Amino acid sequence: MTIPEWEKGFHFEVLAEDSNSKARLGKLTTPHGVVFTPAFMPVGTYGAVKGILPEMLDDAGAEILLSNALHLEFRPGSDTVAELGGLHRLMGWNRPILTDSGGFQTYSLADLIKQHDDGIEVRAPMDGSKHQLTPEKVIQIQRNLGTDLMMPLDVCAPGQAPRQEFERALVTTQSWAKRSKEAFASTEPLHGNPQALFGIVQGGIHENLRRQAAVALLEIEFFAYAVGGLAVGETKEDTWRIIDFCTGILPRDQIRYMMGTGTPEDLDMAISLGIDLFDCVMPTRNGRKGTVFVTEGKLNLRNALFRNDPSPIEDGCHCYACRKDESDRPRFSRGAIRHFLNVGEVIGMQLGALHNLTFYLNRLAVIKQGLEAFKT
Amino acid sequence: MTIPEWEKGFHFEVLAEDSNSKARLGKLTTPHGVVFTPAFMPVGTYGAVKGILPEMLDDAGAEILLSNALHLEFRPGSDTVAELGGLHRLMGWNRPILTDSGGFQTYSLADLIKQHDDGIEVRAPMDGSKHQLTPEKVIQIQRNLGTDLMMPLDVCAPGQAPRQEFERALVTTQSWAKRSKEAFASTEPLHGNPQALFGIVQGGIHENLRRQAAVALLEIEFFAYAVGGLAVGETKEDTWRIIDFCTGILPRDQIRYMMGTGTPEDLDMAISLGIDLFDCVMPTRNGRKGTVFVTEGKLNLRNALFRNDPSPIEDGCHCYACRKDESDRPRFSRGAIRHFLNVGEVIGMQLGALHNLTFYLNRLAVIKQGLEAFKT
Repeated sequence: MTIPEWEKGFHFEVLAEDSNSKARLGKLTTPHGVVFTPAFMPVGTYGAVKGILPEMLDDAGAEILLSNALHLEFRPGSDTVAELGGLHRLMGWNRPILTDSGGFQTYSLADLIKQHDDGIEVRAPMDGSKHQLTPEKVIQIQRNLGTDLMMPLDVCAPGQAPRQEFERALVTTQSWAKRSKEAFASTEPLHGNPQALFGIVQGGIHENLRRQAAVALLEIEFFAYAVGGLAVGETKEDTWRIIDFCTGILPRDQIRYMMGTGTPEDLDMAISLGIDLFDCVMPTRNGRKGTVFVTEGKLNLRNALFRNDPSPIEDGCHCYACRKDESDRPRFSRGAIRHFLNVGEVIGMQLGALHNLTFYLNRLAVIKQGLEAFKT
Repeated sequence: MTIPEWEKGFHFEVLAEDSNSKARLGKLTTPHGVVFTPAFMPVGTYGAVKGILPEMLDDAGAEILLSNALHLEFRPGSDTVAELGGLHRLMGWNRPILTDSGGFQTYSLADLIKQHDDGIEVRAPMDGSKHQLTPEKVIQIQRNLGTDLMMPLDVCAPGQAPRQEFERALVTTQSWAKRSKEAFASTEPLHGNPQALFGIVQGGIHENLRRQAAVALLEIEFFAYAVGGLAVGETKEDTWRIIDFCTGILPRDQIRYMMGTGTPEDLDMAISLGIDLFDCVMPTRNGRKGTVFVTEGKLNLRNALFRNDPSPIEDGCHCYACRKDESDRPRFSRGAIRHFLNVGEVIGMQLGALHNLTFYLNRLAVIKQGLEAFKT
């Protein structure tokens, strides 16, 4: 099967490769602009990164966002998003968006899901309404959304599941991948912009299952490949062994996405193993609760220790909260953010989340800068 | 008593007066910049306008904010605000701030307050801790905060209270006003910027009590005068009669502040009766709930009617949400905001509040523009 015409609006290029690790600098071109990799996608499950207006995401350095097709199908419905002009318009965000398919929810919402050969039946957590998701339906939902990067429906087994469960999941995921690609090839974008489809490599912690999965997906041909089904209960050693294994067999010239990871240290490790793309709720969710990342680790800004502390979350940080003004003092002190968190003022949560996003994105910017040296 | 040196950083000038009403265009100069009047102050009780970062308040056209000395004394404590560099730094807002004194809470938190001749004892709503507020203490709190415009402690009786209660309240308010001015004159700013003190005219719906109150305050001499104790249960007719009466006896060349008002129509009326300054939670509180102001009245964005509506809250509005992008479509549609409100995404509340603030501030901008014609 050949790559459909409209996928040609997409391009990925490896610009440089580290000589001491598998890390690489890349450039992803999409109809909504360019993303340099390694890249981190802030998570806006329902079409908004919680509490953060798009301008402030720009300000933090975000180039691409992640949203969730299944949750948007629950509310407001992808048909409604389509009528409102697509997800970019809903979000007020005119740069690239990737949507997850709902496959991960076969793990995270397992109690609400019945899986059958044709797809899954999901009960919406908020009202119990039933939604039938097939691979074809998931493509159609993402056509409605008009997102740049689409994920196919897959099955995500828990990390400690018996090998047979992974084998079964793999058979299903492979069959669904094929149907997803066919649905993708036989439908067209609704909002004027081309879209591209990922394949998702499953197979748990079993290298030969991962290999089977990758080989099958490569045969179908996707724009790019994700490594799914990690950080779902397996050991860290297994995580990195499998990442290393997968990046060893995935094509060099296609983007590699490790789904749902992780801590700043996780990102460092995954990048050194050849991963290009990440998403995680950690920086925003932690930040909203007052747990903020600094070079030395983490701080809990709710701690009474910070009550009278006029210093920024981290000296030298250029995030919206820490940034110095003309008087060389931070816009918001630890003491101020602690107060806002303490009285339930939403801007405390916003400032924590913005700091953490900036921390992540800046960390990647530094890594990218380092990789520039390996440009040929 | 002469005006203290440090009050001289303040200036108010009437630039133009309407020939058909008592409306006037004014210019208030403060150590944190200039405010043109009639002006509306968004309310940030705890040092933040709920969910709105300072940049976005700028964007909406805010020139001055209101915060609450009593609530900040509860949490985080005005001593803590002082250690953090004052309220401007806490809020990340480098333009003028006015703080209310807590006097209004003698009405709104009546069950938690014991009033005595020397001041009031307040139990904090969140933890029951007792706080003694005297006129002197309230000045000290606002010295700690370093706000530009300070209000003295006063007594606010309910609108339908018997006349004797207003008479008693007036005697107390007058004695406290004198003590406030003395405390103001005998203390100095802590954060480098001069501060100015208002007098608050009380007296309910009784013209001769209002007159007594005003005469006594004018004798003490304040930088400016507020009309308090309105919109607390009296009829609208009484409100406007008393405003008209008060602006008739207050000096022409000093700013006049009507506390805690109101709807857009209330602002129109009060401006025509000679009021210069306003604050109210209405635009932000309503906006957060999805009730938005448009030229023709109000819309409830939670209504299913707006589910698929791609139009802006109001065509032609230049607020952050309604503003057209290069493709001539609004940044956020009614349908998008409805979705965010519906799934509990905070940005729905932010967009509603920002629209309403812009609506209020723009309405005043149009009035000010109209008053330009009367410049001599």
